[in-house]
Amino acid sequence: MPNLRDEALHIHKMNKGKLSTEAKIPVRNARDLSLAYSPGVAEPCKEIYDHKDNVYEYTMKGNMVAVVSNGSAVLGLGNIGAEASLPVMEGKSVLFKSFAGVDSFPICLDSHDVDKIVETVKMMQPSFGGVNLEDIAAPNCFIIEERLKKETSIPIFHDDQHGTAIVTVAGLMNALKLSGKSFSDIKVVANGAGAAGIAIMKLLYSLGVRDMIMCDSKGAIFEGRNYGMNDVKEEVAKMTNKDKVEGSLEEVLEGADVFIGVSVGDLLSKDMVKKMEDDPIIFAMANPDPEILPGDAKEAGAKVIGTGRSDFPNQVNNVLAFPGIFRGALDVRATRINERMKIAAAEAIASLITESELSEDYVIPAPFDPRVAPLVASSVAQAAMESGVARINVNPESVAEKTRRLTKIDEE
Amino acid sequence: MPNLRDEALHIHKMNKGKLSTEAKIPVRNARDLSLAYSPGVAEPCKEIYDHKDNVYEYTMKGNMVAVVSNGSAVLGLGNIGAEASLPVMEGKSVLFKSFAGVDSFPICLDSHDVDKIVETVKMMQPSFGGVNLEDIAAPNCFIIEERLKKETSIPIFHDDQHGTAIVTVAGLMNALKLSGKSFSDIKVVANGAGAAGIAIMKLLYSLGVRDMIMCDSKGAIFEGRNYGMNDVKEEVAKMTNKDKVEGSLEEVLEGADVFIGVSVGDLLSKDMVKKMEDDPIIFAMANPDPEILPGDAKEAGAKVIGTGRSDFPNQVNNVLAFPGIFRGALDVRATRINERMKIAAAEAIASLITESELSEDYVIPAPFDPRVAPLVASSVAQAAMESGVARINVNPESVAEKTRRLTKIDEE
Repeated sequence: MPNLRDEALHIHKMNKGKLSTEAKIPVRNARDLSLAYSPGVAEPCKEIYDHKDNVYEYTMKGNMVAVVSNGSAVLGLGNIGAEASLPVMEGKSVLFKSFAGVDSFPICLDSHDVDKIVETVKMMQPSFGGVNLEDIAAPNCFIIEERLKKETSIPIFHDDQHGTAIVTVAGLMNALKLSGKSFSDIKVVANGAGAAGIAIMKLLYSLGVRDMIMCDSKGAIFEGRNYGMNDVKEEVAKMTNKDKVEGSLEEVLEGADVFIGVSVGDLLSKDMVKKMEDDPIIFAMANPDPEILPGDAKEAGAKVIGTGRSDFPNQVNNVLAFPGIFRGALDVRATRINERMKIAAAEAIASLITESELSEDYVIPAPFDPRVAPLVASSVAQAAMESGVARINVNPESVAEKTRRLTKIDEE
Repeated sequence: MPNLRDEALHIHKMNKGKLSTEAKIPVRNARDLSLAYSPGVAEPCKEIYDHKDNVYEYTMKGNMVAVVSNGSAVLGLGNIGAEASLPVMEGKSVLFKSFAGVDSFPICLDSHDVDKIVETVKMMQPSFGGVNLEDIAAPNCFIIEERLKKETSIPIFHDDQHGTAIVTVAGLMNALKLSGKSFSDIKVVANGAGAAGIAIMKLLYSLGVRDMIMCDSKGAIFEGRNYGMNDVKEEVAKMTNKDKVEGSLEEVLEGADVFIGVSVGDLLSKDMVKKMEDDPIIFAMANPDPEILPGDAKEAGAKVIGTGRSDFPNQVNNVLAFPGIFRGALDVRATRINERMKIAAAEAIASLITESELSEDYVIPAPFDPRVAPLVASSVAQAAMESGVARINVNPESVAEKTRRLTKIDEE
């Protein structure tokens, strides 16, 4: 795609990146200055000093998310470093703003040290209402997220894990409607024990799936496996593969209803799909080449196939989740983004496709469906309030309305 | 001022602070998304990975300043903490943008630990083209600035020190023209050994002033004084008070040409002014109450009096300096802001008042004089290039032109 390459470079160079900071209150003259800066600014300072929660009333904090990366696992490019990750993080900030009116700022950290990254994010907490971790390599991403969730009081969300998991699960919810199966019945096999794969397993577990096997490059993961394990795989092993089946992906796929691919391209053959149960559901999300192409999957009998690509049906695109999730979490000043909020987001996304619209090629809404972010936002806000992590109560419909007002995307 | 208080609170609350982040490249549809985000964004990432300096071509970094504070010395409010300092830091960002088109972002750090603050700023360096330190208490502010200058390769500027010093020195340059004296002739006495006072001493030393005495609450500081000293005062002692005069402010003021007050209000009496040389120059910058009121100073014989207040002539306002300084430093990708650049900024500010306009009540341009930021920017850029700290060469006039184009302030 030479045109895309040239045009992408051109717009980045011409604009010197994609993000700017702007004054919501202009300072054009001495009167403005006396209100927005000295001496007037002392008044909100004093209000916040008296009651720290007033920081949400008088500052940007309540609408501001830190997009934090160290550039160690960027797109398909790998460990390209903090500076080279900045275009992605600016892009993420643009999406937050365009889809849900969430302000955010890219913090690209020059470190691979878990302690230093955790410490830095904790130090910056006063400026931010939430933290979106992005493109940090496993297993550090898990450790950083867990520690920050414990050691801060604002939402911490590693989008590569949970954004992908939420959209995949939304698609799976709708695909199961088509195949007439339920979470408690199905056998799921996932390939790829990275950030997204593990988060998907955990979210499926929360939804009641009990027959799951996760494979890595060495085959099925099981409790007690004595090769190629790490802390996160040990954790996954505890909630999956209860019969401790050993074997290759091909072997364990036998009789599976669902395949989740978050690995590498061209790894799932037609023959492997044929070994699955009837009407298998396949999410082949390796990028840019999926584990199996949709045409091949269909030929081998797949009922539904989703990928990460925009040129095939059923695109698993995180943009369906993270803008609305943070919109909802911020608007109730949530202290965290918990399982109930993630499930509410997935259900919201799935629910936008009505029974009559639902089809094999339409189990996930399009990325630019303008109904998505408002419904995700209100559903997440409601789930936060119901699960006791909201610091204020709001009318969920007002959250949806605000999101609709702030969204800048075109109707499809 | 009940109206100011209410209005300041109202505009902060209504707008939820003063700063937002905005997309320079909109993402309204799938085509936009493919350019600003996946897959197009991989192209600038790869360019930066290949040559790290390309981060200045393809990202926001080259126009982005971190406004860093820990809220330990905010305005006259003192150590109010990181959250309560956020309105000031947002305000600073608004001024950067309004006066010189510089993007900046408030990073309020929840720590008083020098090592942690230094480490955090170093970690965030990939996102920023420069760092403005703000409202950090002495002596930590000195240590943090010195360490960051040594350990980073982007401009580090503690505005409470250098912004104040530059504008004061600009005013003094013009005041000396009126009194027919030069830097090498004058005796300067300063009161207040905080951030601003010490920076003023250092900048005056760079300009050739050799007869200086700095006082703190214990009187004149001199080398070998064995009470109330610290590292920074030891450093000041080395460049001032070469005769090691001991005594109160009142005693050492005898025969001084210039008084610099960065201490507390109502401290300089008319009698003390009368002990100074003929036609003394007084910068009484304590806020909100100056060390002496302009009327009293004039009655006691002062030639020129400047304060920090907007309701008196000759206001020392940092906004005359920092927006243009960073504009110039960023536009040549300066690695630091050195003495030559600071002096260039002071000279630029002073030069805007012509010989015929110059008067006792007009030695410093007004804060909203639209000529200031463009001239400061071009002068600083030129000084950076001449002193070997610019990473690229630009035409200084194009820097001024860009600043004029980006400025959003009204003509006075």
